[in-house]
Amino acid sequence: MINKLVEGIKKTEAPIVVGLDPTMKLIPKFIMDKAIKEHGETLDAAGAAIWEYNKGLVDAIAGLVPAVKPQIAMYEQFGIPGLVAYDKTVKYCKEKGLVVIGDIKRGDIGSTSTAYAIGHLGSVKIGNTVCRGFDEDFATVNPYLGSDGVNPFIDVCKEEKKGLFILVKTSNPSSGEFQDQLIGDKTLYHLVGEKVAEWADTHMGDDYSYIGAVVGATYPEIGKIMREVMPKSYILVPGYGAQGGKGKDLVHFFNKDGLGAIVNSSRGIIGAYQQEKYASFGEEGYADAAIAAVKDMKADIQSALK
Amino acid sequence: MINKLVEGIKKTEAPIVVGLDPTMKLIPKFIMDKAIKEHGETLDAAGAAIWEYNKGLVDAIAGLVPAVKPQIAMYEQFGIPGLVAYDKTVKYCKEKGLVVIGDIKRGDIGSTSTAYAIGHLGSVKIGNTVCRGFDEDFATVNPYLGSDGVNPFIDVCKEEKKGLFILVKTSNPSSGEFQDQLIGDKTLYHLVGEKVAEWADTHMGDDYSYIGAVVGATYPEIGKIMREVMPKSYILVPGYGAQGGKGKDLVHFFNKDGLGAIVNSSRGIIGAYQQEKYASFGEEGYADAAIAAVKDMKADIQSALK
Repeated sequence: MINKLVEGIKKTEAPIVVGLDPTMKLIPKFIMDKAIKEHGETLDAAGAAIWEYNKGLVDAIAGLVPAVKPQIAMYEQFGIPGLVAYDKTVKYCKEKGLVVIGDIKRGDIGSTSTAYAIGHLGSVKIGNTVCRGFDEDFATVNPYLGSDGVNPFIDVCKEEKKGLFILVKTSNPSSGEFQDQLIGDKTLYHLVGEKVAEWADTHMGDDYSYIGAVVGATYPEIGKIMREVMPKSYILVPGYGAQGGKGKDLVHFFNKDGLGAIVNSSRGIIGAYQQEKYASFGEEGYADAAIAAVKDMKADIQSALK
Repeated sequence: MINKLVEGIKKTEAPIVVGLDPTMKLIPKFIMDKAIKEHGETLDAAGAAIWEYNKGLVDAIAGLVPAVKPQIAMYEQFGIPGLVAYDKTVKYCKEKGLVVIGDIKRGDIGSTSTAYAIGHLGSVKIGNTVCRGFDEDFATVNPYLGSDGVNPFIDVCKEEKKGLFILVKTSNPSSGEFQDQLIGDKTLYHLVGEKVAEWADTHMGDDYSYIGAVVGATYPEIGKIMREVMPKSYILVPGYGAQGGKGKDLVHFFNKDGLGAIVNSSRGIIGAYQQEKYASFGEEGYADAAIAAVKDMKADIQSALK
């Protein structure tokens, strides 16, 4: 799956993942109104609206970018109907040839991590039949519980040829509160990064490992250091755009081969139609606005990498 | 909700939370067979079996213990049908007067943590109607992302009079890999514990805070220290029984008032019928075996606290 991701990045020339993070504020009013008309003011209406919104976005961006990253929290907030929309979105994106990174940030003790890994990346046997739950291609994982919280995910990834992005340095302002603490002469995120490099060695694709890391665009200097600490890991870079990360900040996250990083944008693309720059598309043109925003982001990154 | 939990512990004299963590190995064969007969070898069969298994357990233990802790991973492994069983279980337990601790270990950056908090503890407005997703009473939270990952949960808890248990020191063997690292003269878990104490002060119930912590029974010496660091926080103690924690180890987690800790047992209770000690109940008597195991656990803890 890491090979498919790298190929997709080369083919589209866009090291971009689109964050499918639907919120009430982002869903166009005409879609929400229609859903409420059909389902009433219920969670089912929210689920139906998310699915229609996502379908329009996915149809627009498939072929332009290699991957999508649905943030499961944005679906989970609507309970079961929200998660049904998540499930449908994952399956639809895979049909369209997109690599799906489930942004689930799960992590627990051994047997519980195994259950998460099975539900999101693997399969479970019911009687003699192999059944699959959410079945994303990659998942994000929280390392706070240590190796025996992460290894069950890696084990399932090895069986399934799937991958992980492990949180190293997150993009939020207070990420330093624990992650930047000095342990001896190294920070906690540095220590986690070294561990990611070890894990990465155990599950290699052709040129890059199935085991990647998350490092926020909002901390480019840290990206530079972590790039060297984890040479074989793809870095998933959130925080571009709405959170303040800029194209020129991204250069440090890439290797000299022009690969090794994939940059996420969520609101900046799926909510582009709400920005002044793309306002002419109007609400009904939200998917076309997303296409324009993807193209602008691609140009921004390409000019930074030159 | 923390007041309801404390009252429940006093009333039942059982500082015990039953972990509703269904796995294929634990679900009695007669329940699984029936579900497969109705639904085929599908995830729907797993969901139906979990729901029947849980209902039997909950009917048995309601009144004996104050709280249950469904581990959402065990449901998520069966995709949407598993999560439907989780949702039904949470609602049924609340009807039965049990406090429900959703063991979800979520944690993300600001707006995403807000979405998780809304989905699990709060509500969302669809049109003009307030809708609720999973609606547990407490949730477990991972602190790796720092204050702005945790604060959105606390904000929702304040509105809803609900609570959290924040991971401080987990019960697994490799929890020390990051959590035990020395930062200056303190460990990371110590630093997180101090932060929990700060958060706890901002959202107090009558005697205890709505903001608690998770410290594993497998590390009793750490429990002793953390008990002092977080005097107003309830400590949720996993790792008793199957993971190796013993009654005598638990004394350090309690305050002098005999309160301040609630001990989890999952397999030890819901799978008691598979243990030699309770084998006479047979598979069909799994719920009665759970009652016997709860009573034994209660006696074990009470004798340790004397």
